[in-house]
Amino acid sequence: MNDEHFMKQALEEARKAFEDGEVPIGAVVVQQNRIIGRGHNNVERLNDCTAHAEMIALTSAFNTLGSKYLMDATLYVTVEPCLMCAGALYWSKIGKIVYAAPDEKNSYRRATGERSPFHPKTQLIQGPYKEESLQLMKAFFEQRR
Amino acid sequence: MNDEHFMKQALEEARKAFEDGEVPIGAVVVQQNRIIGRGHNNVERLNDCTAHAEMIALTSAFNTLGSKYLMDATLYVTVEPCLMCAGALYWSKIGKIVYAAPDEKNSYRRATGERSPFHPKTQLIQGPYKEESLQLMKAFFEQRR
Repeated sequence: MNDEHFMKQALEEARKAFEDGEVPIGAVVVQQNRIIGRGHNNVERLNDCTAHAEMIALTSAFNTLGSKYLMDATLYVTVEPCLMCAGALYWSKIGKIVYAAPDEKNSYRRATGERSPFHPKTQLIQGPYKEESLQLMKAFFEQRR
Repeated sequence: MNDEHFMKQALEEARKAFEDGEVPIGAVVVQQNRIIGRGHNNVERLNDCTAHAEMIALTSAFNTLGSKYLMDATLYVTVEPCLMCAGALYWSKIGKIVYAAPDEKNSYRRATGERSPFHPKTQLIQGPYKEESLQLMKAFFEQRR
């Protein structure tokens, strides 16, 4: 099982968000080829602007492991994390972050510029399904207009 | 009722965290002189490094109001927010943030430098009970050594 397999799972989560009328972003947390946490945007349903895919997937992973750190885990997320989620990922000491689509407007880079907000040991890469993730976001915001 | 009154309530939350063996930080969210959300650090108990005082107080305020924005509310927090909490406060569009003690090591400034991560309309001030908040943090970390 590879990045493609797990990003497809994150994209499945994003599609669930889309169907629920939520900004379509999804995430899974993987450790030793096993999904230990998953989530999608739930801001509208929970009336809670902190209910991002990554936050939900992280909390679900902490619960699965009974640990508050994720040094050996990888987060797959369909869109580059925002500042809040970047801060949460920092605290989690997560081993690796794979995102599909960059987000020029809302990513953590808006506030950090050239500085990395992540833990020094966290690896960050742009992974598969960029076009599919962007397309889903675009379709969502077009239908909202 | 003034900043002193509400920061004292946040400090009460921080003391609860201290008694629970949690990093002693507390927060309350106030709107029209009413506390609509409160929380303290719960990272150890929940095994969740995202369970910061501010996150819990914000989610509690969203639930109280049934709204995902807090334009007319003020957050009182005993220690300057970290990057994750700053990002959450950004999304909440909170009207005002009052913190007691600065945090050179862990505040959002570590990653943002001179840039403000907050919403342009959010007011940020240093408020009362700085010494008490610092003292509580110091006592906590000294007993841990």
